Amino acid sequence: MSNYYYECSSCGMQFTANEIEDDLHYLCPLCGKAEKNKPLTGVLKVLYDYKSISKELRKDDFLNLVPGKFWTYPQLLPLVYNTKGSSRSLKGISESKLNYVRTSSEPVLKCNFNGNELLVFDDTANPTLSYKDRASVLVAAKAIQLGIKEISAASTGNAGSSLAGICARLGLKSHIFVPEKIPLGKRMQIQAFGAELYLVKSDYDHVFDLCLDVSIAKGWYNRNTAYNPLTIEGKKSSVFDMFINLGGKLPEYIIVSVGDGVIISGIYKGLFELKQLGWIKKMPKLIAVQAKGSNALVRYLKNKKFSYKPAETIADSINAGAPRNLYMAAEAVENSGGLAIEVSDAEILNAQKKSAVELGLLVEPAASASFAGYLKLLKEGVINPKSKVILMFTGNGLKDPGSVSKWNVEPKALSPEQWASKLIED
Amino acid sequence: MSNYYYECSSCGMQFTANEIEDDLHYLCPLCGKAEKNKPLTGVLKVLYDYKSISKELRKDDFLNLVPGKFWTYPQLLPLVYNTKGSSRSLKGISESKLNYVRTSSEPVLKCNFNGNELLVFDDTANPTLSYKDRASVLVAAKAIQLGIKEISAASTGNAGSSLAGICARLGLKSHIFVPEKIPLGKRMQIQAFGAELYLVKSDYDHVFDLCLDVSIAKGWYNRNTAYNPLTIEGKKSSVFDMFINLGGKLPEYIIVSVGDGVIISGIYKGLFELKQLGWIKKMPKLIAVQAKGSNALVRYLKNKKFSYKPAETIADSINAGAPRNLYMAAEAVENSGGLAIEVSDAEILNAQKKSAVELGLLVEPAASASFAGYLKLLKEGVINPKSKVILMFTGNGLKDPGSVSKWNVEPKALSPEQWASKLIED
Repeated sequence: MSNYYYECSSCGMQFTANEIEDDLHYLCPLCGKAEKNKPLTGVLKVLYDYKSISKELRKDDFLNLVPGKFWTYPQLLPLVYNTKGSSRSLKGISESKLNYVRTSSEPVLKCNFNGNELLVFDDTANPTLSYKDRASVLVAAKAIQLGIKEISAASTGNAGSSLAGICARLGLKSHIFVPEKIPLGKRMQIQAFGAELYLVKSDYDHVFDLCLDVSIAKGWYNRNTAYNPLTIEGKKSSVFDMFINLGGKLPEYIIVSVGDGVIISGIYKGLFELKQLGWIKKMPKLIAVQAKGSNALVRYLKNKKFSYKPAETIADSINAGAPRNLYMAAEAVENSGGLAIEVSDAEILNAQKKSAVELGLLVEPAASASFAGYLKLLKEGVINPKSKVILMFTGNGLKDPGSVSKWNVEPKALSPEQWASKLIED
Repeated sequence: MSNYYYECSSCGMQFTANEIEDDLHYLCPLCGKAEKNKPLTGVLKVLYDYKSISKELRKDDFLNLVPGKFWTYPQLLPLVYNTKGSSRSLKGISESKLNYVRTSSEPVLKCNFNGNELLVFDDTANPTLSYKDRASVLVAAKAIQLGIKEISAASTGNAGSSLAGICARLGLKSHIFVPEKIPLGKRMQIQAFGAELYLVKSDYDHVFDLCLDVSIAKGWYNRNTAYNPLTIEGKKSSVFDMFINLGGKLPEYIIVSVGDGVIISGIYKGLFELKQLGWIKKMPKLIAVQAKGSNALVRYLKNKKFSYKPAETIADSINAGAPRNLYMAAEAVENSGGLAIEVSDAEILNAQKKSAVELGLLVEPAASASFAGYLKLLKEGVINPKSKVILMFTGNGLKDPGSVSKWNVEPKALSPEQWASKLIED
């Protein structure tokens, strides 16, 4: 029997692992719905018997694990393990394969910002340079255990380039559906890793639906974010890594940008589990940062009503008119005592520049949005400069050279003689 | 008194640390020459008293260090330490600053290539996504200890983007001189990190000389590769990291691409020190891979005569008509029992694609050159597929999207309806 089960986040019904996985359900078999331009209904949560885990797993042992090696916490993963004596290994996937797709082993950076310590969770050095690798690895591992060799995903870019790269490392085939306007670096990664790329003349919301239709017809395992519950589950690992890296002391605020709402839901899930296990007393407050042009969560939190509005922001990774995991993201913000705010594209680009020049971290717009949100809350006095804060930096700047170009124009070239006379005689 | 001294690689003369550093010498004060379009004469080596270090430092303790934290081997670094009891810290630079510029802590990847294990030393996830961070960090640390706040470098791209990023993280100012044709990603990194960028209408060889002239006039600390002996010293750290990651068992071959010849010299230096300390009996053979259009080392090894030829290859990072560290690189190949080979740009691009599709690693051309060399030697029967080999992957593919574009054209976009009918009715 599995050590985990599924629970519907909409109707609350519970299902065994077999009930969901044998027939390849993704959403709740009773109430799940994936409708055009709407958040998903019936997103499934993976749950464990935390009471018995807390008896078996000691906090101190957990804190001695190495970040980035998610497979070393078998008690908290929806995968199948071989057990031999006290050692466990993932069924069907060798340790060396897993090491080959691991994320960064020291993701927490301690920066100095205006004389105060500012923590950054740096997921820009993962195998494909984004946070999305956390979800891709878990989904790919599940596909291997299910005996499926082809995986599909709709993506604004990072989820797709991540899945493509992880599949290349694990010997799987990937099919990636993206909007036509995908940033250069992300498109190149997807193609380079040998994925089938489907460039769609439409926005992400339509691409999401197209990918579902085709995947069902083709029998591909689907990694669409939120739709596949393992995307949320994979993304909780950042909290465990942070917990380990910080020796069990979490900050007061976690600031993260929100598009589809899956990263923030994953973070909340990780925090929820740490609390269930009795390892933390209080959760950090989750601050959701959205782009003004893609602010569905900010709007939803005001009156608990979703309204579709086509999204448009320079931060492609958080460009989502119909956040698929809207309801769970809203719960994450509210239950953690946090809040959701919006920042303009100009603020996002300004934070991208500030991050590169002052922190030495060149990140993509969706990542710098979290920094923009922090700067805004500092200015408004909501957060104190001395408060313990961690910014989630979710993607490398080189994945989107176009955004960097906005504030970084090519300078004029001079001959060696011209430079010499200009500089030396200055 | 310092625990290290300098020795001229041309005339053999030895100097104390003070004799070199107090007057900011870079090359040998007696015979050093930096002439236009020629390899440097009088490149300095940093040496230590290995006999006494081997008494104090145990191999087992060394193997328990964490890769990427070079400052944890104070006995083998040309920096100044504070000593308090048995603990040491770098003078003038805090542990948290150092952690902020560390390289990857698990750089050795074990790949499966055609059913055999192939090791990759993956330096594409460092702070600025290239091997060059190893040199930049050591040079920047030295600048801080010397009380100099501005550092300059000539670069084909990676050394410059690396120095710019490391300086941004450490609060220093950088001045970067590059040829006009620098790849997009590298230029963007340099500018984004707030460096002064000098775009020069000329090739790397001329840019190198210009940078030296201006740096002397301005009093900037210079990071030109090979010219500053700490660039070689910083680059030896990959061998120590590899040694630690592999539990003290080095492979039979280390395959690395060669431009200016500093990375291979650094690797040789690391191996030399492991041998001096008695921790390895035999060195791995160093295989130098050059591009056909930039093959000065291959030509030099034939008759021990250097002849200048303007260089031209798609692998910008190893494009050097006059390799500044030619003589030391030649020594590294010969003393290790290795060899130097050349590969065409087509082979380099083919290996870039193969690496992405089959290994899941998207690297820049200078990195894939090492893979191209490996494929060539496999084909020629010089290396056996079962032999233990490590490829040095020195830079991320997203630093040079132009090279990836050569084999990766943008596909045609279709509407959702067109894709649906094409794929589902297939």
